[in-house]
Amino acid sequence: MPVLIVGSIALDTVKTPVEEHADLLGGSASYAAVSASFFSPVRLVGVVGTDFPQEHIEFLRSRGVDLDGLQVVDGRTFRWSGEYHWDLNTRTTRSVALNVFEHFNPVLPTSYVQTPVVLLANIAPALQMRVLDQVEAPRFVIADTMDLWIETTNADLRRLIPRTDLLICNDGEARQLTGETSLIRAGHRIREMGAKFVAVKKGEHGCLLFGEGQFFSCGAYPLEDIHDPTGAGDTFAGGVAGWLAGLGKETFHFQDLRRAVVYGSVAASFNVEAFSLDRLRSLTREEIEERYRTFRLMSQFEAMA
Amino acid sequence: MPVLIVGSIALDTVKTPVEEHADLLGGSASYAAVSASFFSPVRLVGVVGTDFPQEHIEFLRSRGVDLDGLQVVDGRTFRWSGEYHWDLNTRTTRSVALNVFEHFNPVLPTSYVQTPVVLLANIAPALQMRVLDQVEAPRFVIADTMDLWIETTNADLRRLIPRTDLLICNDGEARQLTGETSLIRAGHRIREMGAKFVAVKKGEHGCLLFGEGQFFSCGAYPLEDIHDPTGAGDTFAGGVAGWLAGLGKETFHFQDLRRAVVYGSVAASFNVEAFSLDRLRSLTREEIEERYRTFRLMSQFEAMA
Repeated sequence: MPVLIVGSIALDTVKTPVEEHADLLGGSASYAAVSASFFSPVRLVGVVGTDFPQEHIEFLRSRGVDLDGLQVVDGRTFRWSGEYHWDLNTRTTRSVALNVFEHFNPVLPTSYVQTPVVLLANIAPALQMRVLDQVEAPRFVIADTMDLWIETTNADLRRLIPRTDLLICNDGEARQLTGETSLIRAGHRIREMGAKFVAVKKGEHGCLLFGEGQFFSCGAYPLEDIHDPTGAGDTFAGGVAGWLAGLGKETFHFQDLRRAVVYGSVAASFNVEAFSLDRLRSLTREEIEERYRTFRLMSQFEAMA
Repeated sequence: MPVLIVGSIALDTVKTPVEEHADLLGGSASYAAVSASFFSPVRLVGVVGTDFPQEHIEFLRSRGVDLDGLQVVDGRTFRWSGEYHWDLNTRTTRSVALNVFEHFNPVLPTSYVQTPVVLLANIAPALQMRVLDQVEAPRFVIADTMDLWIETTNADLRRLIPRTDLLICNDGEARQLTGETSLIRAGHRIREMGAKFVAVKKGEHGCLLFGEGQFFSCGAYPLEDIHDPTGAGDTFAGGVAGWLAGLGKETFHFQDLRRAVVYGSVAASFNVEAFSLDRLRSLTREEIEERYRTFRLMSQFEAMA
């Protein structure tokens, strides 16, 4: 079952305390699409400039990503540059150049219109809704968001949320969106705003999943070394969407979502092991399944004595 | 199987953004002893002044806590006062008066000398070692510590760690003790310092447990309302120690520790629901077991499809 993914496609310059690399493949849709491609066919919607390297196009194709919805327009590709601080938990954006992304008008090819699972990866809520408007009766809609949209386009985001089955945000964003300090309250509040399920990402602390009268706490896979956290959230979202689509079900229940966020966490845990999407280039489904098994052993405990 | 607990016994004044209460029963040994008492017989070692309210003595007795090792000496009881900030995640110590605690010389009654499980709750490592020196061949030694001792008595702490089976600290302290930013590396490093097992508490994010080639990630029980976080860590440590002692085993394995930290987390989750140890006063073992079951359901996910 295919998944439709819209988001940004970027060329990133990333500096960590140890290394710096320029013009890497980046953007929310790139990470999400490649991550999802391990579990299901992917249909990508996005825009790049004429400077976008052909090798990246070929990499996406090699992952089986359908690029009929990729617009290549005159101008430069969206560029982002950021620097991570000593503990890799916080970062400063050094520069953003929207370039061709500024006038992005996502138009779905006819072949995309009937896609059962939709991932609105992190871009402006107005663009996310413009894509959603073009999909015919999707079965499951996932939206990722960020602090920028909560601040600058809050009304749009509030209109989008009731149209999503799963809203994904991080802990700070959940607090910002709801005004609640408790993440547990914040998760419930976002459900009250209209999202059927809510996933709150907590970085090195894992994630929380909320459903109707249901809750799941997922740890993070224990990594000793993180090389580049960029795209971890997008890879998580892509893994969740791809894995759900791969189930090929009519409706998705809490127990499906539970496993989906674990698969998303596993995919993200691989991605941060190298810069850009480099770890995903060599990643295999077998490695994913093996880490899922290990993850499960590390999260379980016996019933009472 | 009994557990011996040494630590501080205090009268606390606690201010949260909502409430303030003075002269509450507090101190690491008080929380730990009452928490442990749900699972096993407890032998307490500590000191109070002649101003220590008889009702607190009676409460400890009502929980079956053996007070033969409690010294009542001329002077005032140890007093601590702290204020929590808006999100209850950080606090400022307003005042500390050691009083009778300043010259505390823990001496074990003969009846305590053969206690199989020992919890050295949070006090100066030199005092923790003085107690440990008096115990004959303990089967399992747990030590809790804090940032103050890492800073001011680091050499003592480094001598204590190889004598412990389980060292408990929080995330900031694990980083401070090892100089590692990754909690995963920090956990391994503390094991290299000589602790057989390490539990790293992460507050609202749960805790991590490290053993030889083994790892367990435990979420936190999802609470919407926290009234007073004071003593959560001590209640956790007491629950871990008491539950292990309650098993009555010769040796303790990783799977025992795994369940012990969940029981510790459950005990702590009840304790923060009210000021001081008030929630523990009405708590029942049945409530603990019920929350353990719920906790387990919230942490589990199915094997691969």
